[in-house]
Amino acid sequence: MPANTFGEIFRVTTCGESHGAALAAIIDGVPPLIELDESVIQPDLDRRRPGSTRYGTPRNEPDQVRIISGVFEGKTTGTSLGLIIENTSQRSGDYSAIMNSFRPGHADYTYLAKYGIRDYRGGGRASARETAMRVAAGAVAKQVLRKLFNITIDGCVTQIGNIKTDIFDPKAASENEFNFADPAKIEDLKALFKELATAGDSVGACVQVRAHGVKVGLGDPVFNRLDAQIAYAMMGINAVKGVEIGDGFDMASMKGSEARDELTPERFMSNHNGGILGGISSGQEIIVKMALKPTSSILVPGNTIDKEGKVTSIVTKGRHDPCVGIRAVPIAEAMLAVTLLDAALKHRAQCANVPPSAFEIPTEM
Amino acid sequence: MPANTFGEIFRVTTCGESHGAALAAIIDGVPPLIELDESVIQPDLDRRRPGSTRYGTPRNEPDQVRIISGVFEGKTTGTSLGLIIENTSQRSGDYSAIMNSFRPGHADYTYLAKYGIRDYRGGGRASARETAMRVAAGAVAKQVLRKLFNITIDGCVTQIGNIKTDIFDPKAASENEFNFADPAKIEDLKALFKELATAGDSVGACVQVRAHGVKVGLGDPVFNRLDAQIAYAMMGINAVKGVEIGDGFDMASMKGSEARDELTPERFMSNHNGGILGGISSGQEIIVKMALKPTSSILVPGNTIDKEGKVTSIVTKGRHDPCVGIRAVPIAEAMLAVTLLDAALKHRAQCANVPPSAFEIPTEM
Amino acid sequence: MPANTFGEIFRVTTCGESHGAALAAIIDGVPPLIELDESVIQPDLDRRRPGSTRYGTPRNEPDQVRIISGVFEGKTTGTSLGLIIENTSQRSGDYSAIMNSFRPGHADYTYLAKYGIRDYRGGGRASARETAMRVAAGAVAKQVLRKLFNITIDGCVTQIGNIKTDIFDPKAASENEFNFADPAKIEDLKALFKELATAGDSVGACVQVRAHGVKVGLGDPVFNRLDAQIAYAMMGINAVKGVEIGDGFDMASMKGSEARDELTPERFMSNHNGGILGGISSGQEIIVKMALKPTSSILVPGNTIDKEGKVTSIVTKGRHDPCVGIRAVPIAEAMLAVTLLDAALKHRAQCANVPPSAFEIPTEM
Amino acid sequence: MPANTFGEIFRVTTCGESHGAALAAIIDGVPPLIELDESVIQPDLDRRRPGSTRYGTPRNEPDQVRIISGVFEGKTTGTSLGLIIENTSQRSGDYSAIMNSFRPGHADYTYLAKYGIRDYRGGGRASARETAMRVAAGAVAKQVLRKLFNITIDGCVTQIGNIKTDIFDPKAASENEFNFADPAKIEDLKALFKELATAGDSVGACVQVRAHGVKVGLGDPVFNRLDAQIAYAMMGINAVKGVEIGDGFDMASMKGSEARDELTPERFMSNHNGGILGGISSGQEIIVKMALKPTSSILVPGNTIDKEGKVTSIVTKGRHDPCVGIRAVPIAEAMLAVTLLDAALKHRAQCANVPPSAFEIPTEM
Repeated sequence: MPANTFGEIFRVTTCGESHGAALAAIIDGVPPLIELDESVIQPDLDRRRPGSTRYGTPRNEPDQVRIISGVFEGKTTGTSLGLIIENTSQRSGDYSAIMNSFRPGHADYTYLAKYGIRDYRGGGRASARETAMRVAAGAVAKQVLRKLFNITIDGCVTQIGNIKTDIFDPKAASENEFNFADPAKIEDLKALFKELATAGDSVGACVQVRAHGVKVGLGDPVFNRLDAQIAYAMMGINAVKGVEIGDGFDMASMKGSEARDELTPERFMSNHNGGILGGISSGQEIIVKMALKPTSSILVPGNTIDKEGKVTSIVTKGRHDPCVGIRAVPIAEAMLAVTLLDAALKHRAQCANVPPSAFEIPTEM
Repeated sequence: MPANTFGEIFRVTTCGESHGAALAAIIDGVPPLIELDESVIQPDLDRRRPGSTRYGTPRNEPDQVRIISGVFEGKTTGTSLGLIIENTSQRSGDYSAIMNSFRPGHADYTYLAKYGIRDYRGGGRASARETAMRVAAGAVAKQVLRKLFNITIDGCVTQIGNIKTDIFDPKAASENEFNFADPAKIEDLKALFKELATAGDSVGACVQVRAHGVKVGLGDPVFNRLDAQIAYAMMGINAVKGVEIGDGFDMASMKGSEARDELTPERFMSNHNGGILGGISSGQEIIVKMALKPTSSILVPGNTIDKEGKVTSIVTKGRHDPCVGIRAVPIAEAMLAVTLLDAALKHRAQCANVPPSAFEIPTEM
Repeated sequence: MPANTFGEIFRVTTCGESHGAALAAIIDGVPPLIELDESVIQPDLDRRRPGSTRYGTPRNEPDQVRIISGVFEGKTTGTSLGLIIENTSQRSGDYSAIMNSFRPGHADYTYLAKYGIRDYRGGGRASARETAMRVAAGAVAKQVLRKLFNITIDGCVTQIGNIKTDIFDPKAASENEFNFADPAKIEDLKALFKELATAGDSVGACVQVRAHGVKVGLGDPVFNRLDAQIAYAMMGINAVKGVEIGDGFDMASMKGSEARDELTPERFMSNHNGGILGGISSGQEIIVKMALKPTSSILVPGNTIDKEGKVTSIVTKGRHDPCVGIRAVPIAEAMLAVTLLDAALKHRAQCANVPPSAFEIPTEM
Repeated sequence: MPANTFGEIFRVTTCGESHGAALAAIIDGVPPLIELDESVIQPDLDRRRPGSTRYGTPRNEPDQVRIISGVFEGKTTGTSLGLIIENTSQRSGDYSAIMNSFRPGHADYTYLAKYGIRDYRGGGRASARETAMRVAAGAVAKQVLRKLFNITIDGCVTQIGNIKTDIFDPKAASENEFNFADPAKIEDLKALFKELATAGDSVGACVQVRAHGVKVGLGDPVFNRLDAQIAYAMMGINAVKGVEIGDGFDMASMKGSEARDELTPERFMSNHNGGILGGISSGQEIIVKMALKPTSSILVPGNTIDKEGKVTSIVTKGRHDPCVGIRAVPIAEAMLAVTLLDAALKHRAQCANVPPSAFEIPTEM
């Protein structure tokens, strides 16, 4: 689990800061002979990029990705894949006010204490800008998952502030600017964002992502369980403070007779466990939920200290999202994709010699 | 993230099944010169072991640990530490009924599909028995954390079924058989367990663990964030289906102005973020919550299939816990200990040359 | 590359000291459904064990291995495999003389400086005793290689002191007590060992190991080349100071027109490269050579210092091999087996979807 | 040991092919606050780059490195460091002849068999061009080693074909175009290269690199010994077929009484072991030797097969080095630097709490 690398067989390593020259990723372990070019990656980047929604930051980055290695004549070569996105929109004036003080709720304080140095022009690696490369790597993983394993992934926002839904509908979500699963709540959301704009405040959110077509057998029984890998992936996304698999925290108040997913030869009779049993995929849909905190980049003044440890107060101007959950959907999808691909490749490393079983329940698509 | 190994610098590797000859662990990367013998490890094992509570399985294992290497004259040598616990209580008759059928909610189905072979006498590596070695390794980690970093860890149960508390009180919890933080709820719990016994059913739970004395600076900003590592550790425990850091899912409905933790030179004014900002410890208490599902080993008959894929039904006899959360506290503490020690050692690997900072807020103990 | 673990997919982790209670290994990533019991492992242990040759140490350890997990009904289960060998022959009196002084050429000095503590009763983890567990793990790897990949491995001694041979003949070697490839040199060797016994001195050696049946494609092009992995494995064996693949150092004085291995549709016309081209196996025999230094455990007095840094002199009594190369053959075979199996499993993780090629030259058996 | 990543704490990941758009590296685990900019890296790149010597390839690449992240105001920030070198000299016409046939001695055959696809315009990742990024990463490692650990590294060529020297003199070597340690042999070398040019042939070489100022204690006793890590690093360099530590293969014919390095309070009396005892640095100079094979890119026609498996013959035109050893010195230095820095950081992770010892012999500079 090294800092800037994710995955073991399919390994994504990234670099790049919000106010640096460029973002880059090197992806190792890509299976060869998979169709790939920039057009496979760009659409997911466009879903995440600043400026994609009226309810996000007005910072407008084209986020144009360039493949610099690992692809030849439109196919992956099996050698390390290089991706680069040049940074273009760096308003250097915006951040000067925060040069000497720590924004509460941000990583400013912990960074400077850890490293003794900090790029005060922005969040550095803690900036959400870093996630562009996760999305790019996720798009590669999604393509391999589709081509080799028939796995697809989608997601949507299911809660913003106190506005919630039990619906999971990525298609409907893609048609509104909140990425929200339930179109009936759009007017409420608009009202909420009007309030937030007036108050200069922000709000938290829940995001749900699912994987379809995952066969039984991915993941390991101990430590490196598939659910543990997913939790690691999701909690590693900026602002995520909680992760659930299947029914998650609701499980605490359930009885064993309710929570177990009974089996018939044709199907599981429920999916309380979110497609994972004993750390191993069950062939059902993988269901992952996460909570994202409200961003701390707000206009409401906050108490803090400066680099000398003196009392001060701060207001975070600049171009920020009032709800980071909205643009987090492609990021969560990307991390789920990378996690599942890595698990799928590991599985075939160890268990390719296991013969098919008579009892297997059809995989849920 | 290999299957049966946890950690990078302080690395715990385990083996052993519920019905095998023994459990073992090899711990690599132990700092040398730390006082250690079996008496440091045994108390935590005794807290976890079957038979320790009237409200757990009646299976009674002494779980006596033996150090076979890595300690000389009462101190760690820096070379790999070997631990072994012989299995003594294996009632081979108990499990014969489940030899050919899959217990719903258990790993039986996913295991056999993954590996093509399964030790039908018990849960194999999916058995909670495996966690004994995590607790042993955690006791070693706790000792190193105490001696080198002044970090301590404790925990308790905060929810069983619908009986909840906001109190976090490990000391009070250690004095009741439910490990429950709030003594005022003990009578309710007794009534609940009487019901469960009658119904032959089980119930879920929430566990909370905390670390005290963690200095600012542990963890990395991207992917391998301290919260991500903790989520990986906790979700990797049997039956855990949800993990929260600090306020967790409550963050989704909060405003930015409420959720950020403001700073003064003497202290943080709140700890909504659970002691981690931008993936890095803030010097506050680390707060981790998790939900455990009700065990599926119950007497209520359930629909399932057999190894030929035919319809059948099952009842899980044997010696099982009606609420696995009760014995999970030392396991969660252990996994937090191993995670923090690994992060602390990694931090000194990369950042030992960072000078102390003027602005640092005192660490919360 | 953690200290006491070898391999990535097939991962061997060991513990145990020369004078501790036991040696143990945990092997992760073992493919399931492979026939395995102690009888598969014991023969290689018997080839390595002290007391197996008149020309080795008179210390006599039965080195009886016990499988404690990961095997059920004679087959591997895919979960972590536990191996243990109890130590039985510990003459505690033998080592008291070296308690306070550093044997020159040994790890005594570097160990104590690194860790600040040392089990003065023997070499600790630096003792050749540690290699017993490598041999056990190697026997498991050999079994998997045979069953899943049709790969076999053998080896022999090709040089002891100035007595050399160009012959590679493991069968002939197994019939003499020097493991020496050329039976014509046995009388010379006997004379040499008589001299050594008189002088109380020791001598170096070269060992050669080969793998047969390795298909084209194992290994990676950069850093983690198959030859690099093999060099890591071999140089990681106690006393090894040089490693060659194929013609090795002779390549330095060759021309390109001599050294390249030309191809025909039926075969390579030579094997100067030892079966590896560009870091990837070529389908030819893998040829690995290594040099082992003479042991420093000798009766000739040597200058050294004691724990206070004072001048002293030392004689290493006890039960030592005059030539550690003789018992090194099964160790080198074991490390080659583990390396190749790990590479084979990694290869199928990434490249299982590559279709067979028209041009492939038959694998050399 | 993932394919395109080297190191554990200080981790170098690279991508880029000889005929792709660019080469890139991401370096993780860089200690913060180290002075760094392009001017620290460029000089080593200039030593390696094509066109730097008359006796190398006439391909002329400026190899201008650009830091894209991880440095702020001239100092490392502790976050991942991004390096990029754009490719500028790609003569696409040169390689068309080898599109359908395998150059013997090259990776062409093994690559295509492994991946099912190959960039036929050049060696892809097997090209020596890839090593530019190793040299860049090595320059970063050298800077950290100098600033934090007082370690320096140098090297030179000690053998080309049959022309050898026992001298190790990096300064003298830097003054001739063969990087050769002994100036007295320059005329012989010129004559040899004239012959090679006429014959269209190439020749092998030996390179020696040393590290000065390495304190006692780096490396681990088992598997991940410092000598094993170095062997892995060196054998992972293109064309290297043999590696020695200290006296290497000469050890095979030595007696124990000659080979051990006796100690006095002031110094070791010899350095046959090359600065490593029991896998741990001894405080002496680290001495590493390696053999490089003659390049197979020659004008002498060779027998081979084409992609249909048919007999053919090949001549490798293009711009190639007659002796790849000459430009290999900075590559070997770079890999030694990365290896030692990683070992030094790991050592302080585990053993920072070990107090200084009374007996320590001064480190050899």
